Amino acid sequence: MHAIDFIQDLAVIMLVAGMVTILCHRFKQPVVLGYIIAGLIIGPHTPPFGLVHDEQTIKTLAELGVIFLMFCLGLEFSLRKLFQVGATAFLAAFLEITLMIWAGFEIGRLFDWNTMDSLFLGAILAMSSTTIIIKVLTDLKMKNEHFAQLIFGVLIIEDILGIGIIALFSGIAVSGTVETDQVFATVGKLSLFMIVALVIGILLVPRLLAYVAKFESNEMLLVTVLGLCFGFCLLVVKLEYSMILGAFLIGAIMAESRQLLQIERLMEPVRDMFSAIFFVAIGLTIDPRVLVDYAVPILVITAVVVLGKLVSCGTGAFIAGNDGRTSMRVGMGLSQIGEFSFIIAALGMSLGVTSDFLYPVVVGVSAITTLLTPYLIRSADPLAVRLSTSMPPRVVSVFGMYGEWLRSIKPRGDKAMLAKMIRRILLQVGVNLALVIAIFFGLAYFATPLSKWLANWVDRQALHHAIIWGAALLLSLPCLIAAYRKLKALAMLLAEMGVKAETAGRHTARVRRVISELIPLLSLGGILLLVAALSSSILPTMELLVVVGLVAALVIAVLWRWFIRVHSRIQIALMETLEQDKGGH
Amino acid sequence: MHAIDFIQDLAVIMLVAGMVTILCHRFKQPVVLGYIIAGLIIGPHTPPFGLVHDEQTIKTLAELGVIFLMFCLGLEFSLRKLFQVGATAFLAAFLEITLMIWAGFEIGRLFDWNTMDSLFLGAILAMSSTTIIIKVLTDLKMKNEHFAQLIFGVLIIEDILGIGIIALFSGIAVSGTVETDQVFATVGKLSLFMIVALVIGILLVPRLLAYVAKFESNEMLLVTVLGLCFGFCLLVVKLEYSMILGAFLIGAIMAESRQLLQIERLMEPVRDMFSAIFFVAIGLTIDPRVLVDYAVPILVITAVVVLGKLVSCGTGAFIAGNDGRTSMRVGMGLSQIGEFSFIIAALGMSLGVTSDFLYPVVVGVSAITTLLTPYLIRSADPLAVRLSTSMPPRVVSVFGMYGEWLRSIKPRGDKAMLAKMIRRILLQVGVNLALVIAIFFGLAYFATPLSKWLANWVDRQALHHAIIWGAALLLSLPCLIAAYRKLKALAMLLAEMGVKAETAGRHTARVRRVISELIPLLSLGGILLLVAALSSSILPTMELLVVVGLVAALVIAVLWRWFIRVHSRIQIALMETLEQDKGGH
Repeated sequence: MHAIDFIQDLAVIMLVAGMVTILCHRFKQPVVLGYIIAGLIIGPHTPPFGLVHDEQTIKTLAELGVIFLMFCLGLEFSLRKLFQVGATAFLAAFLEITLMIWAGFEIGRLFDWNTMDSLFLGAILAMSSTTIIIKVLTDLKMKNEHFAQLIFGVLIIEDILGIGIIALFSGIAVSGTVETDQVFATVGKLSLFMIVALVIGILLVPRLLAYVAKFESNEMLLVTVLGLCFGFCLLVVKLEYSMILGAFLIGAIMAESRQLLQIERLMEPVRDMFSAIFFVAIGLTIDPRVLVDYAVPILVITAVVVLGKLVSCGTGAFIAGNDGRTSMRVGMGLSQIGEFSFIIAALGMSLGVTSDFLYPVVVGVSAITTLLTPYLIRSADPLAVRLSTSMPPRVVSVFGMYGEWLRSIKPRGDKAMLAKMIRRILLQVGVNLALVIAIFFGLAYFATPLSKWLANWVDRQALHHAIIWGAALLLSLPCLIAAYRKLKALAMLLAEMGVKAETAGRHTARVRRVISELIPLLSLGGILLLVAALSSSILPTMELLVVVGLVAALVIAVLWRWFIRVHSRIQIALMETLEQDKGGH
Repeated sequence: MHAIDFIQDLAVIMLVAGMVTILCHRFKQPVVLGYIIAGLIIGPHTPPFGLVHDEQTIKTLAELGVIFLMFCLGLEFSLRKLFQVGATAFLAAFLEITLMIWAGFEIGRLFDWNTMDSLFLGAILAMSSTTIIIKVLTDLKMKNEHFAQLIFGVLIIEDILGIGIIALFSGIAVSGTVETDQVFATVGKLSLFMIVALVIGILLVPRLLAYVAKFESNEMLLVTVLGLCFGFCLLVVKLEYSMILGAFLIGAIMAESRQLLQIERLMEPVRDMFSAIFFVAIGLTIDPRVLVDYAVPILVITAVVVLGKLVSCGTGAFIAGNDGRTSMRVGMGLSQIGEFSFIIAALGMSLGVTSDFLYPVVVGVSAITTLLTPYLIRSADPLAVRLSTSMPPRVVSVFGMYGEWLRSIKPRGDKAMLAKMIRRILLQVGVNLALVIAIFFGLAYFATPLSKWLANWVDRQALHHAIIWGAALLLSLPCLIAAYRKLKALAMLLAEMGVKAETAGRHTARVRRVISELIPLLSLGGILLLVAALSSSILPTMELLVVVGLVAALVIAVLWRWFIRVHSRIQIALMETLEQDKGGH
C-alpha cells in the first residue's frame, strides 16, 4: 500500500512528539516547545537521521494545522469582547506593534539582512503568544487578576492587527515594493472586506449552524463547520488574501453562533492533531547549526523583545491610566513571541521572500522568551517597587498627577452615556458605509461579465454601465437611508449640545434645525461622491447619471418606509445574533 | 501556495457532503449513504465535472479514514463483552459468515467473475453494518430489547472474524493461491499474533495512558493515542499484516484503559472528519453507468444478502435456543452490508486484485439493503406469526420439543460452575501457550542478527543456537510453569469427577493421583515437542539440548517460587486492567 510511508511519518511524528511533550510537561515547559524539539530530533539535520519520508504531505497537513490554529483563534475571538476592550488594550497593542515592527526592522538592517527579512522580523516580534500567556498565568494562578484581563484585551487587538499585517505583508511580498498609497489601499480594501464578511457571515452562518445542530449529530455539525471553514478560506484565497485571514474570519463569525461551545469541543482534537504536525514541521526545517551561527542575533533580538514589549506595553498601559505596578505586569506578561510569530514566519517561507535562517532564529527567540515569561511576570512587582523608590520624588509626583488628571477628564454619567451613543452611531454609519462601498466594488468587479450578459437585451455599452451603477445604487439604498437617518440623529445631538441658547439667542431653534439638516445631507453628498470616485470604472455618463439619480429619487420617495423596515429587520437580526447567549462564554 | 488545490478539494468535499447528508437526514437515510452520493456528485463521472484535483492526497487521507474507523470500532469492542457473548451470537455469526462467503463466491462464479472478485465478494457479503443497525434500532426504539442484544453480540463476533478474514485475504491476494495448509498457517500465526499483542498491549498501554492522563491535557492524550495508533499500525504492517488489523487491535487494547470515554470523545471528531473523506472517496471512484450495467448482479446479490443472512443468522439463533420470533428479528436485523464491506472492498482495490466494477456493485447492494433494513425488522413479527401458523402442526411441535430439550441439557448450578471453571482454565493455558510459542517464534525471527552479535563472544555457531534457544526457554519458563499448574488443577478436577469410588474401589485415591500427575506432565511434554517443532530453525543439537534442559531444570528447581510470583503478578495486573471500571461502559 502506498500510504505506508505516510503512516510511518505520522507514527514517528506523534510518538516522538508525545514523548518530548511529556518531558516538557514534567519540566513545566509549554507543549509547543516540545513539538518543535520533537521536529528537531526527527529532522534531517540531527542524529539519528531523517525519519520523515513523505515531506510534501506532511507540509500540506502542516498548512491545515495553520488553518485550524487560526480558526480556533477566531473562535476564541469575539466581537463583543472586542467592543468591551478598553482604551488600555488599544493603546498598549498599538504602541507595541508600531514599536516592535520598527525595532525588528532596524535590527534586521543592523545585521545586514535584506528588506523582506527585516520587515517580517518586525511583524514576527510584534505578536505575543496567547497560548504561552494563558499557560503561565494559569500556572501562577493569576488568570483572574486585573492585569491579566488587560493582557487578554491586548491580545485581542494584537490578533486583529496581526491579521491586517499578514494581509498587508502578503501584498507587499507579491508586489515586492512598499509604497504608502498602496499600503493605504490594501488596508482600506482589507477593512472593507473584513466588515462585509463579518456582517454577511454573522447574518448567515449562525443561522445555518443552528439549523444543522437541530439534527443533533456531531458528525453533521463537524462536516458543516469544516466545509464552511475550507470554503471560506478558498473564497478568501480567490480574493487574493491569505488563507490565514480566511480561517480567522470564519472562526470569528462562528464565535457568534449559539453552537460555539459544541464547535470548540469538536474542533479541539482536530486542531490539536494538525497543529502538532505544524509545530513538528517547524522543527523539521531547523538546522541546529544555524542556532549556533546566529547566537548573537538571537540574543540581541531576545533582549529587544523583552525590553521593547515591556516598554511599549507598559507605557501604553500607564498612559491609559493604570498604576505603575499593573503597567509593569502587563508589559512583562506580553514579553514573548509564540505561535502567531511562527505563522508569520511560515508565511514568509511559503511566499519565498524570507531567508532560511529566519525560521530557526525566530524559534530560538521564542524558546528563550517563553522560558523567561514566568520569571518576568513574577519580577514585575519588585521591579515596580524598586523603580518607584529609586525615582526622584518630583518625577513620582508628576506621574501621580498625570493619573489624577486622567481620571478627572474621564467622561462620567450623562457625558459618558453621550460619548457611548455617539460612538455607537458612528460605528453604525461606518458599517453601512462599508456595505455601500462593497456593493459598488462588487458590481464593478463583475462589470465585464454583467455587461456581456446585458448585451443580450441592450445594445448600447453606455447604457450597461448606467444599469449596473443604478442597480448598485438601488441595492445600497437601504444602507444609505440608514446612514442618513443615523447621521441626522447625530447631527441633532450635536446641534443640541453645540448651539447653546445663550449665544444663539432667539435663533437657537432655527440654527439647530439648519445644522441637523445640513450635516447629514452634506455627509451623504460626500459619501456619494466617494462612492462615485471608487466606482469610476462603471460610472455612467453625466446625462445617464442624472436619469439614474431621478429614478433613485423616485424609488426613495415611494419605498422610503419599506427600505427602513428591511434595514431595521436586518439590523435586529444581526444584533440578536451578536447578543445571544453562547453557552457560558 | 501549493496547498490551495488541496484546500479546495477539502472545501468541495466537506461542503457537498454537508449538504447531501442534511438531505439524507431529512429523508431518514444514514449519513454514510449521503457521503457516497456526495462523492458521486463531485466525482469525474457525473456532471457538472470532476471537482477534485489532488486525488492522491485525498486517497491518502481516505486511508487514514479507514484506520480511524477501525480504531474506533476497536474502541467499541471489548474483551469483556466478547467473553459475555453467548452461544447464540457465536453460532449465528459463524453460520452467517460461512454461508455468505460461500454464497458470495458462488454468485461471483455464476456471473463469470474471476476467483479474487468472487472471494472478496464473499467476504464483503459476510459483514453486516454496525452503524446502520444501531441507527435503525435507535429510530425504531428497539435498542434495548433482547434481540437487539443478540444482534450486537453477533456483530462483535463478526468484527473479530472479519479481521481474521482481512488478514487471510491479504495473504491470499499477495501469494495468489488458496491452499489449505497455508490458510491454517495464516490463521494460526494470526491468532498467535493477536493473543500476544492483546496480552502485552493490555499490560502496557492502559498504564501508559493513565500516566499521560495525569497531566490533564487533552492535547497530550490525543497525541499519545495517535502515536500509539499509527506506531502499532506500522508494526503490524512490518509483520506483513494489514494496517486495518493493527488499527482494530490497538483500539481493542485501548478499550481496556480507564481513559476509554475520554479517548472516544477526542477521537470522534477526528474519525468523523477522515471517515467522511473515506466515504466520499468511495463515491469518487464510482461510475454510475456501472450501476446500470450491473443492475442484474446488484439485484441478485441484494436478494442473496437478505435471504442468506436471514436464513443463516435466524437458524443460528434458533439452534442456540431462541424462539422463532426472536430468531426472525435477529436475521432481519443483520440483513444488510455497510462500512466494513466497504473497507474489505477498498482493501481488494488497493491490493490490486479485484476488478473496478466490484466497488460500485457493493455500494449499490449496500444502498438497497440499507433502505430495506427498517422495513425488514418491522416485518419480522408478522412473518414469524405467519410462518408458525402455516407450518404443519407436527413440525411446530418438533421445533418446540427441540427448544425444551436444549433447555433441559443446559448445565445448571454446580455443573454450570464447573463448566465455567474448566473453560477458564483452558483459556489461561491457551494464552500461556500462545505466549510461549510467540517467544520462541520471536527469537527464531531475530536469530540471524542475534547470532552475529553473539559471534563477538562465542565462536562456535552451534553454541549460538543453544544460547538463543535456552534464552527462549528461560523467558517462557514462567508461562510454562503457570500452564503446568493450571493443567494440574484441571487434571485434579477431572480425576475427581471421572474416577468414581464405585468403580475404582480402594484404588480410587491412587488412580486419581496418577491421573492428576500424568495429564499435566504429558501435556507439558506435548507442548515442548510442539515448541521444538515450531522453533526448528534454531533448535540446537541433541547434546546441547540436553545441556540446555539440565540448566533449565536447575533454574526451575531454584527459582520455582519466584517464577510463580512473577507470573501471578503479571496475571493480576492483566485481570485488574480487564476488570476495572471504564467510566460507564
